[in-house]
Amino acid sequence: MPVFNKNSARLRDEERARLIWLLTTDKSITSALSGKLTLAEQYDEGQLVDDIAEVGALVAHLPAPDLADTLEALPSDERHALWNLVEDGKRGNVLLEASENVWDDLIDGMSDRALLDALQALDIDEQIYLVQHLPRDLTGRLLASLPAEERARVRQVMNYADDSVGAIMEFEVITIRPDVTLGAVQRYLRRLGKMPENTDKLFVTARDKTLLGELELQTILLNAAHLRVADVMESEPVTFQPQEEAEKVARTFERDDLLSAAVVDEDGKLLGRLTIDEIVDVVYEETDNDIRQMSGLSSEEDVFAPVTKAVKNRWAWLAINLCTAFIASRVIDGFEHTISQLVALASLMPIVAGIGGNTGNQTITMIVRALALQQIQPGNFSFLILREMGVALINGIVWGGIMGAVTWWLYDDPQLGGVMMLAMVLNLLVASLMGVLIPMMMTRMGRDPAVGSSVMITALTDTGGFFIFLGLATLFLL
Amino acid sequence: MPVFNKNSARLRDEERARLIWLLTTDKSITSALSGKLTLAEQYDEGQLVDDIAEVGALVAHLPAPDLADTLEALPSDERHALWNLVEDGKRGNVLLEASENVWDDLIDGMSDRALLDALQALDIDEQIYLVQHLPRDLTGRLLASLPAEERARVRQVMNYADDSVGAIMEFEVITIRPDVTLGAVQRYLRRLGKMPENTDKLFVTARDKTLLGELELQTILLNAAHLRVADVMESEPVTFQPQEEAEKVARTFERDDLLSAAVVDEDGKLLGRLTIDEIVDVVYEETDNDIRQMSGLSSEEDVFAPVTKAVKNRWAWLAINLCTAFIASRVIDGFEHTISQLVALASLMPIVAGIGGNTGNQTITMIVRALALQQIQPGNFSFLILREMGVALINGIVWGGIMGAVTWWLYDDPQLGGVMMLAMVLNLLVASLMGVLIPMMMTRMGRDPAVGSSVMITALTDTGGFFIFLGLATLFLL
Repeated sequence: MPVFNKNSARLRDEERARLIWLLTTDKSITSALSGKLTLAEQYDEGQLVDDIAEVGALVAHLPAPDLADTLEALPSDERHALWNLVEDGKRGNVLLEASENVWDDLIDGMSDRALLDALQALDIDEQIYLVQHLPRDLTGRLLASLPAEERARVRQVMNYADDSVGAIMEFEVITIRPDVTLGAVQRYLRRLGKMPENTDKLFVTARDKTLLGELELQTILLNAAHLRVADVMESEPVTFQPQEEAEKVARTFERDDLLSAAVVDEDGKLLGRLTIDEIVDVVYEETDNDIRQMSGLSSEEDVFAPVTKAVKNRWAWLAINLCTAFIASRVIDGFEHTISQLVALASLMPIVAGIGGNTGNQTITMIVRALALQQIQPGNFSFLILREMGVALINGIVWGGIMGAVTWWLYDDPQLGGVMMLAMVLNLLVASLMGVLIPMMMTRMGRDPAVGSSVMITALTDTGGFFIFLGLATLFLL
Repeated sequence: MPVFNKNSARLRDEERARLIWLLTTDKSITSALSGKLTLAEQYDEGQLVDDIAEVGALVAHLPAPDLADTLEALPSDERHALWNLVEDGKRGNVLLEASENVWDDLIDGMSDRALLDALQALDIDEQIYLVQHLPRDLTGRLLASLPAEERARVRQVMNYADDSVGAIMEFEVITIRPDVTLGAVQRYLRRLGKMPENTDKLFVTARDKTLLGELELQTILLNAAHLRVADVMESEPVTFQPQEEAEKVARTFERDDLLSAAVVDEDGKLLGRLTIDEIVDVVYEETDNDIRQMSGLSSEEDVFAPVTKAVKNRWAWLAINLCTAFIASRVIDGFEHTISQLVALASLMPIVAGIGGNTGNQTITMIVRALALQQIQPGNFSFLILREMGVALINGIVWGGIMGAVTWWLYDDPQLGGVMMLAMVLNLLVASLMGVLIPMMMTRMGRDPAVGSSVMITALTDTGGFFIFLGLATLFLL
């Protein structure tokens, strides 16, 4: 009854948790693994030897993706100690599955030679990917290790942008000719003896590599052996080109429920294939990055990195944030005379700014997502602006009205209440207008609309809110 | 040369954009399609008839997922007009592919009868999914339309929670017995004539439905026809149970590069299967929801919904935000005397609050993601808190020091500078501590840590920042 077998996801969940628990609750395991404790010292602590044996057994049993996840969930020292236990043959795959932000830590103690050896276990496209992204330049050494005829192709692949189809496609494909029978295809496959991982279809090509169609494994199994490939293949498959954006292609995979697809050049010649497992990685990475970037976290932020690294990582956004806060503060300072006349303004102004920031952030989040889904087109753009401003106007009048009334009642000053309401309406309008315009303009300028958009809109609604509220107060109340 | 054929993703991208453009730039198309223009009036506008014909052709050509995306990118009236053009046979699939927030709009004008008819084209699991989630209660009518023996099973499936494996699994599976040969399997498949979509493997079961193993299509093709299924099958496959959380299972799919997996009950009996295309939908939905919820948007928020609906959707969060802002305002009000003595405090206090909000949001974003990735375990929890507070302390001393010096210089008041620095250090410590604790506590309480976490931390850092800064000023400066 294979509910809870050796491959069970639940069993591995538990093993990962156990490994993390062992390493983080008993520091001496890490010391021992890093060679900081002598064997004698290890034996002095009775439990330690058992624990180390258990750690070893878990590392040996867990497959590469689980090890990668475990490494990501450990502080730096423990990460090193665990990495040293990973056998050489698995290391390449663990690197591949681990997220960018821990690579630094992992390869820190490895020589270039050892690193290249670890990569040997991987497919050439995976090697290229790692060599290009690892924080150490191994490109030359990798190229030197390749046969001459492969080198040219690899150089070409290295030219594709990071987030393009070319960078994530696989080279290994099985191609067949259109004029053979399904029976012949099946004999050919048996002779091959294996297929690349996640193969759900074969690619039908002409002698010059032009893609003519695709043949699903299903089709081979469902049809009579005497039929020819050309008669049963899908002759108008969905294909992609290497320079296309991976994130957009991921949406097409989702839309069309694709498992794999051919990558062809401008002449329709087959270059490789994209598989759904790469696409799932792209989706997770894309959305992870969006979430991080909106709040001004770098995509290299690693939850378990040491303090010094985290400080370095967040330095830039903190500085930007301080600058914008400082500007807002100068705006208030400009109204010092007004505030000294009416101190109540000081306690009311954060309400105007805060409510603007909230609405602005909601608007910008929606627009960034709609842009990612390609929902915003020239035709519906003006509708969007009008809609968001309409929402802001209604909310401003309703909630601004309520706050205005509360202010009137609290300070017994109807004029102050009126200023409060008017300021809220205006700041909400600014917030929603900017919430639409900022991501649109960033996209127009070819930048990622998610990066720091939250920091930007908050800066605008703070400064704007203070200026509008204190400005109106100066005009009407003094 | 099939680079740009009828299935091309790029061609369909263009067709979607064209459809949106046509409907949103010429209002009379929508009027005509909704029957608000007579044929005579339509012919008065020369271009209109051509445009309507083009809209019709595009709707007929675009497959269901593309139509769903187009509908999502249209304002309400245009959405209705386009929906009316979608042929009955396609409507079920379009509903299935469209996101929840447009269902309301689409089914608005349909009778229960018409809706049930539209669902007929779908698999039974898809029908159940829609019937359970559509904003209209059709459960009874659907159950009534089913044969008695099916009804019990459907009722059972309806009991699985929304975000569970049971709710997204498919019933259609091909099962085989372990003691037949691969040749027999292939003959059986040819007799069946077709397989469920995205079938990459068959399930090997005993007579009582107990899952014994899985047989990949690859394996059938690669091995000799006389081998028996039991000899070549994967006998310890990764399986899931219906009550497992879909989001967690999605991570396992990603980790193990699965294309499909069996769903079994506690006794190991096969109930159905999960496929990667459902999982990709889960991933997109999960991350989309996280992004929305962090900034306090409901998951039903529809970018193109009319103003009134958007106002209703955002009502609750806006009210919460106003309340927290009001509390912060009352804190400031408590220090009215202090501010009236030293008006500079009014312009400096937003800096303290703002920088806290920024750091708090960064911390909370990281923790929410780490929780989703199951990276946080009892063992590494205290490390996380200490790390975040360490980062806050260093940033507080460095940037607080800089701001303190600037304050000293601006106002020629060293004591004010000292208060500024101390307040920044303290508020950053509060922000980072709360940034870790809030999501952890919400998880412990069984709630989604993403929901409104940004609103909550901002409220805390604002109120805390004002209190700390003005409190210190009252203590040391008056």
